[in-house]
Amino acid sequence: MSNPNGVDQTENPVPETKVLAVASHVVYGYVGNVMATFCMQALGCEVAAINTVNFSNHTGYRQFKGTRTPPEEIRDLYKGLTNSYLLDFDVLLSGYIPSAEALHEVALIARDLKTRREVMRPGSFFWILDPVMGDQGRLYVSEELVKGYKSVMRSGQEGPDLIVPNGFELELISGVHLSGSTSTGEDGAELERRPTGDNYEATLDRVKEAIEVLHKRDGIRMIVATSVRIQGKQGVLCVVGSEKKSDGSSRCFVIEVPVLDCYFSGTGDMFAGLMVGRLREACQNAGTLDKHGWASDDDVSASELPLAKATVKVLSSMGAVLEKTMKAKDEELEKYESSRRASLDPQSKKDDEEKRHFLAKTKAAEVRAVRNAGDLIRPNVRFEAVALD
Amino acid sequence: MSNPNGVDQTENPVPETKVLAVASHVVYGYVGNVMATFCMQALGCEVAAINTVNFSNHTGYRQFKGTRTPPEEIRDLYKGLTNSYLLDFDVLLSGYIPSAEALHEVALIARDLKTRREVMRPGSFFWILDPVMGDQGRLYVSEELVKGYKSVMRSGQEGPDLIVPNGFELELISGVHLSGSTSTGEDGAELERRPTGDNYEATLDRVKEAIEVLHKRDGIRMIVATSVRIQGKQGVLCVVGSEKKSDGSSRCFVIEVPVLDCYFSGTGDMFAGLMVGRLREACQNAGTLDKHGWASDDDVSASELPLAKATVKVLSSMGAVLEKTMKAKDEELEKYESSRRASLDPQSKKDDEEKRHFLAKTKAAEVRAVRNAGDLIRPNVRFEAVALD
Repeated sequence: MSNPNGVDQTENPVPETKVLAVASHVVYGYVGNVMATFCMQALGCEVAAINTVNFSNHTGYRQFKGTRTPPEEIRDLYKGLTNSYLLDFDVLLSGYIPSAEALHEVALIARDLKTRREVMRPGSFFWILDPVMGDQGRLYVSEELVKGYKSVMRSGQEGPDLIVPNGFELELISGVHLSGSTSTGEDGAELERRPTGDNYEATLDRVKEAIEVLHKRDGIRMIVATSVRIQGKQGVLCVVGSEKKSDGSSRCFVIEVPVLDCYFSGTGDMFAGLMVGRLREACQNAGTLDKHGWASDDDVSASELPLAKATVKVLSSMGAVLEKTMKAKDEELEKYESSRRASLDPQSKKDDEEKRHFLAKTKAAEVRAVRNAGDLIRPNVRFEAVALD
Repeated sequence: MSNPNGVDQTENPVPETKVLAVASHVVYGYVGNVMATFCMQALGCEVAAINTVNFSNHTGYRQFKGTRTPPEEIRDLYKGLTNSYLLDFDVLLSGYIPSAEALHEVALIARDLKTRREVMRPGSFFWILDPVMGDQGRLYVSEELVKGYKSVMRSGQEGPDLIVPNGFELELISGVHLSGSTSTGEDGAELERRPTGDNYEATLDRVKEAIEVLHKRDGIRMIVATSVRIQGKQGVLCVVGSEKKSDGSSRCFVIEVPVLDCYFSGTGDMFAGLMVGRLREACQNAGTLDKHGWASDDDVSASELPLAKATVKVLSSMGAVLEKTMKAKDEELEKYESSRRASLDPQSKKDDEEKRHFLAKTKAAEVRAVRNAGDLIRPNVRFEAVALD
């Protein structure tokens, strides 16, 4: 459908895409489905959102109100869609899921959607899974949910087609210790008991090893490790992706992006949401959207993979938006500081002041996606995918 | 904040706007907060959404799953925002609210936000209320909620700054019978017991009378009646708006839009969401954003009101998107019919076939907002606001 005025096919060549998005909802700020939905819609995707939690704000504020959606309500909402034949989805994107029981419901939804599509257009349905479990050595879900994710990874054709873990999550699900000092047992149990610390640094060889384990042992076809600190590479994060070949071997690409001196929440959701649109676009361009699991032929090199091209665009959009967010954050915090100085109550407690400052800093770092939608739609490509041999 | 690539100030001159949006959430389709949020974000507004229900789909399908948000959870979510100082909203947009108790919570939120803003920037906070109660003579909320809306209308400075009822809702809250045969008592009780039918037609004099009652009796400053059938005007709906003068009198404008031969759900939410951005834009252009309630001077004529200019743009966007939706709907239904003919089971019951056809028709009429975002952002102005003397 062409549209001369706006987000049309010439300037935004993402094919029509219907997505079922299962992730968290927050009233204020940009994480979970709020972030992912906006990113997908900016790229022209239709999004149906099942919200796994309804919180006032993200947990990085260290306080919030709201409720988790019970697993049976997730099932019930999907039943509602089924009853009215509202299941014409091309993609399932699953993000934060609060419990192993809820993950079980999501896996059943994935299986059902895949099975229905097998009848009509085999292999055309695609599940992108962000295994949200923790970051920088800190686990923030239950051990039971970690086990659930591992089991989902190993469910073959019924499992996810693309997973987008961060470095810590890649360690957890592969069982490969990325820093290269020791490799853990196959079930990764040791890792869970001994999460790596904030300052650990991986080697690219180990990242590749972890990716190959997931290709071969678990059968996952596409993987992007979204942020890994690599030994000897100062000031950059590495994004490492691969689409497995038919013999199960990897073809890894690496993209280096500068580290920004700020902690943002919701960047994983931003990555996943933009990836939905960009992968559809790249696979359409490569003519693979009608192939089973959107698979590339074996002779496509790592840096020429649709997955690599999509990742470059996604990271270019994110780089632009996050830089603008940092600038806006500094301006907001300056205003906060000057208004605090003007109204400072000499009786106020130091603890209160510190808490208030922390909350203001966290708020100021909310990603400015909406006012910078142009960077999502038309990124200036600023990175390069390089094959990792 | 300028942005050379995308939805920037030159092509989308809506000023930075933070909105708290309280309305329904559906997984599939475009009504309530799903519709309003996307429309506002397309115009560059930041939206914080409190979802009053979480349903699988809109009720026009005649079946759905999901839950209503209890009033105490609405209160709790707002408490979460308060605790973390996440209250920097310029606008409250309230849509579907499931009960009188929930409306009470929303009115408390509005009062709190207004009071806080009074200290910093008096009158700059703005409440847009869509009194969702029914349509075309059919009430679909409780009598208690209707009473609640009437009471909220009469709460003066603490009440809404702009209301956007449809014709039926305008009758209910004003107590003025629009078809001109009888005028009901001030409390409109008679009307509620005797809802006007599908085919009733109003007169513009009576619409103006109803608007004046709301200006003078209830003190509502801005009103847009979003769709009224007027006697003698074939093939068009009238949209009638007014901003009251300082003596309480009205200055009404009328915009005629063609009737489309299709029932769409979510158009009220689309109108309200687009109105948030367009009214901010028009009031900024008129220099009234810093005035109490964004009020225009008395010498501004009806057709030159920021409200009139905003309404013209909103209706132009909607006209374009709804026309494209009708076309897409016809294509989708053709596909449905041919696939049904191909797979028709001679054993299937006529009732099942009819139900399935109804569901397919309802789904096909879901408004195509996302793929036509350009029409939201850059409408070709196609209507005109004319003063009603």
